[in-house]
Amino acid sequence: MTPILPTIQFPADLKSKTLEQLQQLADEIRRFIIDVVSVNGGHLGASLGVVELTIALHYVFDTPVDKLVWDVGHQAYVHKILTGRKADFETNRQKNGLSGFPKISESEYDAFGVGHSSTSISAALGMAIASKLKGENDIQHVAVIGDASIASGMAFEALNHAGVTNANLIVVLNDNAIGIDPSVGALKSYLMQVKQGENPKSNNMIKSLNFKYVGPIDGHDLKALIHELQRLKAKSGPQFLHITTTKGKGLKQAEENQVLYHAPGKFDKITGDLLENNTQKFTKYQDVFGLTLLELAQQNPKIFAITPAMPTGSSLKYMMDQFPERAIDVGIAEQHAVTLAAGISLGGFTVFCAIYSTFLQRAYDQLIHDVALQSIPVIFCIDRAGLVGEDGATHQGVFDIAYLQAIPNLTILAPKDAVELRQTLFTLQNNSKPVAIRYPRGYSSVENWKVSFEKIDLSKIQLIKRGKKAAVFSTGTILENVLEALSFDEDYFAVHHFLQIKPLNKTEIVELISGFETIITVEEGVIKGGFGSVINQIILANNINIKVINLGVPDVFIEHATVNEQLKQCGLDVEFMQNLFKKVQNV
Amino acid sequence: MTPILPTIQFPADLKSKTLEQLQQLADEIRRFIIDVVSVNGGHLGASLGVVELTIALHYVFDTPVDKLVWDVGHQAYVHKILTGRKADFETNRQKNGLSGFPKISESEYDAFGVGHSSTSISAALGMAIASKLKGENDIQHVAVIGDASIASGMAFEALNHAGVTNANLIVVLNDNAIGIDPSVGALKSYLMQVKQGENPKSNNMIKSLNFKYVGPIDGHDLKALIHELQRLKAKSGPQFLHITTTKGKGLKQAEENQVLYHAPGKFDKITGDLLENNTQKFTKYQDVFGLTLLELAQQNPKIFAITPAMPTGSSLKYMMDQFPERAIDVGIAEQHAVTLAAGISLGGFTVFCAIYSTFLQRAYDQLIHDVALQSIPVIFCIDRAGLVGEDGATHQGVFDIAYLQAIPNLTILAPKDAVELRQTLFTLQNNSKPVAIRYPRGYSSVENWKVSFEKIDLSKIQLIKRGKKAAVFSTGTILENVLEALSFDEDYFAVHHFLQIKPLNKTEIVELISGFETIITVEEGVIKGGFGSVINQIILANNINIKVINLGVPDVFIEHATVNEQLKQCGLDVEFMQNLFKKVQNV
Repeated sequence: MTPILPTIQFPADLKSKTLEQLQQLADEIRRFIIDVVSVNGGHLGASLGVVELTIALHYVFDTPVDKLVWDVGHQAYVHKILTGRKADFETNRQKNGLSGFPKISESEYDAFGVGHSSTSISAALGMAIASKLKGENDIQHVAVIGDASIASGMAFEALNHAGVTNANLIVVLNDNAIGIDPSVGALKSYLMQVKQGENPKSNNMIKSLNFKYVGPIDGHDLKALIHELQRLKAKSGPQFLHITTTKGKGLKQAEENQVLYHAPGKFDKITGDLLENNTQKFTKYQDVFGLTLLELAQQNPKIFAITPAMPTGSSLKYMMDQFPERAIDVGIAEQHAVTLAAGISLGGFTVFCAIYSTFLQRAYDQLIHDVALQSIPVIFCIDRAGLVGEDGATHQGVFDIAYLQAIPNLTILAPKDAVELRQTLFTLQNNSKPVAIRYPRGYSSVENWKVSFEKIDLSKIQLIKRGKKAAVFSTGTILENVLEALSFDEDYFAVHHFLQIKPLNKTEIVELISGFETIITVEEGVIKGGFGSVINQIILANNINIKVINLGVPDVFIEHATVNEQLKQCGLDVEFMQNLFKKVQNV
Repeated sequence: MTPILPTIQFPADLKSKTLEQLQQLADEIRRFIIDVVSVNGGHLGASLGVVELTIALHYVFDTPVDKLVWDVGHQAYVHKILTGRKADFETNRQKNGLSGFPKISESEYDAFGVGHSSTSISAALGMAIASKLKGENDIQHVAVIGDASIASGMAFEALNHAGVTNANLIVVLNDNAIGIDPSVGALKSYLMQVKQGENPKSNNMIKSLNFKYVGPIDGHDLKALIHELQRLKAKSGPQFLHITTTKGKGLKQAEENQVLYHAPGKFDKITGDLLENNTQKFTKYQDVFGLTLLELAQQNPKIFAITPAMPTGSSLKYMMDQFPERAIDVGIAEQHAVTLAAGISLGGFTVFCAIYSTFLQRAYDQLIHDVALQSIPVIFCIDRAGLVGEDGATHQGVFDIAYLQAIPNLTILAPKDAVELRQTLFTLQNNSKPVAIRYPRGYSSVENWKVSFEKIDLSKIQLIKRGKKAAVFSTGTILENVLEALSFDEDYFAVHHFLQIKPLNKTEIVELISGFETIITVEEGVIKGGFGSVINQIILANNINIKVINLGVPDVFIEHATVNEQLKQCGLDVEFMQNLFKKVQNV
């Protein structure tokens, strides 16, 4: 058989192909994705599940004139390969390479940049409303959204609005019963019934929102997909197509272990077996959190925990497996998760809410209005705080210190290492105020983190290294880089670690500062409004004449690269800091 | 007839009453609310609509053991009157008086503090899950939510979760087809059909989410309500009761003009006629925005505008009336509103998104991830920025400068007066980057704001008053207080107005500062992470030795009071600032 993939650069190249050729193309694309991702890493399962759908969409619609918005974007590899980026696909998620997600600046075929879930219907509806107003009635606008994403409130808001418009919007529900972890909630149960034909006619939620509903159809049946999409393309107004697919389709292990093969790291491209990651250091912060919480929950029946759709990623799964009544996944529902946490806390439980820094942005109002304003002692475990590496700009956890600083009643903590994270969790069990603990993605450098539990003084400013002339005020795990950068120094630089970022004891800080010539604040978060800005305010309010340097993430979005490359870009790497420290010493 | 209301202090006092007595009580409570609100102001229509429901709930359930959560809380006056706060009701919304919303610290009968919409189901579900875990199977948890609030994504997330639990949760949908403005969206259309009996059996959205659904029943029929609630009280698991009510019930004008009588200000308690507000100064900032935008839209067919559920409050109604295709209310759907704005902007329109500062907190992630990251030129018109007065802590617009500062690519503007707001809107028509303009609630002190349009230099730091020794850096309308406070001064204090808060020209600011002994920053927003904090960073980064004072909102939640009282509390009133300025001058 002559390979088809080499003949495809852009969607226009699909139009002349036969159904058989398109089916062959699907196989070749699967092979190509497996070959590249097995070596480079990245999101595997989602893209394997939408090979036929992506081919059918680009075959039927006239992209980029017709607009195609991928929800989340995990699944857009096939789309990238078919839209001029096949040759660059090897650079996926690397510095200056392709983004792991659709991105307007990368291609005119990427109608909307994504990364977080449940935005696609709103964005596509906006474009559809604009087209209508411009009299462009033949243009179609397609949002492809998964069953985990459509259960998020934002997607519901968009459906609720779309249903009363005459916009040319086609929502394709890619129903594979899983997001990163298996989908949850009543809508998922309902979709299951629909798929099993139990409840296909009555109480159709989508129909109740004024959509014309078609489905479910087999999302791996190219012929059926093309037929249905061609029919919908000719229609006007909001349409809804429900398709069913298998995440990981075409790689046996990926189909059977869908959570593991969502983003499996490196694997054998023939057997599918995962390869050992030899670079890993000890234990992930996520596991330090998850395993510690499990221990605490074993001892303390009042502990309750919530994650919005990240049981595996946050490692809350350990507690969920053992205490399913007290540890729950509420799906992609950050707003609900936070206010639910407030309600459960009022019911007398110590509630830990595990949420990624970037996703807590989705529940900012609930944090202010429902938790902090009422001073309800929910404990936010803010995962993936700081720079996140290959997921890039959409997922950076760099804003949290700044957006949390502004909130009264809230305590903000950033442990320096795995042991301190563990002891912080232990100490907070009897906590009476809202607290946020931030910790990074990835591996801790402490081997023996499973030490005996011990209460620690959270607010104590910790003297890590003595020094006479300059003081480094560091918060969080970036301390490790600070200390490595200061390996040359004997007693010029003092280093203080701030486990507690907020509130700060102003008197203590003023005393600490006295005698030094220079203060350098260091944090893995935006400089604007960050930890350093509060130190600055204390210095100025007390009229202290001292040289101050604030290190942190600059006021730009930090694109995908390795964490180390991103640290370098921000001037938070060892080399940059060492040069800076040496300069401070010599001046 | 012997009056009943004087015999009622707490819900327990209801239990012995006959149906007829309870019906009489409903009339007396309506009269009492009208008497007080006609003189004191406050939210009228919503409470008049739920008199029977509130009596029935407290008659049937055993509050505060059974939990009762009111969504938004506009409608909780009856509840407050029946739960020990009748005598204090005259202090409603006044400093140190009753809050206009339920509040945990005010009464054990207020199971959850509210103000923003759509939180009630999450909170009540949390309490219900906690009760189950504690084995308290007889306790009920009731969320009362309106049809406008239940259409918000957060409420959907909660329903979607509740439907797969066995929690003792009763959701009462108070369907009056209106929020503050008439409800919108597909769900509203669906509820209309249900009420008209057109579609009562099939495609029931609530049933599709696993709830047991009852209704619709007449929410002014006490007998029917009591009967139905008693039946539901005895059941376990999630229940849904759909009732229909009339907002403003019992006052003719309030029933006929539901938008106007949502919070009508003072009115004649007998005739219901609105009384003139003699304290009003010229034009509201909201109308300056709404009428200016209308003018711009008349001239510029590319202008599009969006409000999430505040057409009247934001004055977007002017444009909506004249250009319904280009100005839309998407309902209580802040997340959707922002991403929709991004989509419409990509479609080639200049999109103005009118949203209250406190509600933009609901779309923080969308602002970062969908607008700023892609640098899409949506113009956010941030209404009710700063201190908001009687609505109190839940509604303060004081966090926006801080939470927006942290976002790259975003321009933040705060006009000093109505004319500058008008010219800013005009100037931004050809804008190519995301922008946020903040302006306060209430009346402008400029009479002739409707001047000819003129492009202005948004980034120019404006010298308002010359001075030699100290410089005040002010942003936004608080400038008025600054100038009044400086009425005594000849040439000690310079005053600079920063229309543009972000980005700042560091070189220009460093030059500006040189020669002064003191810098005082003033903003109507939180000090932590605010405008002043960025000035501080510039000062310290440039090693300038100068005295700095940051004025703004301190790190506490500011409770209900008049705006002037709140300004006083924050040290932003004329008197405090004048004393401070005099002190600075003498030192």
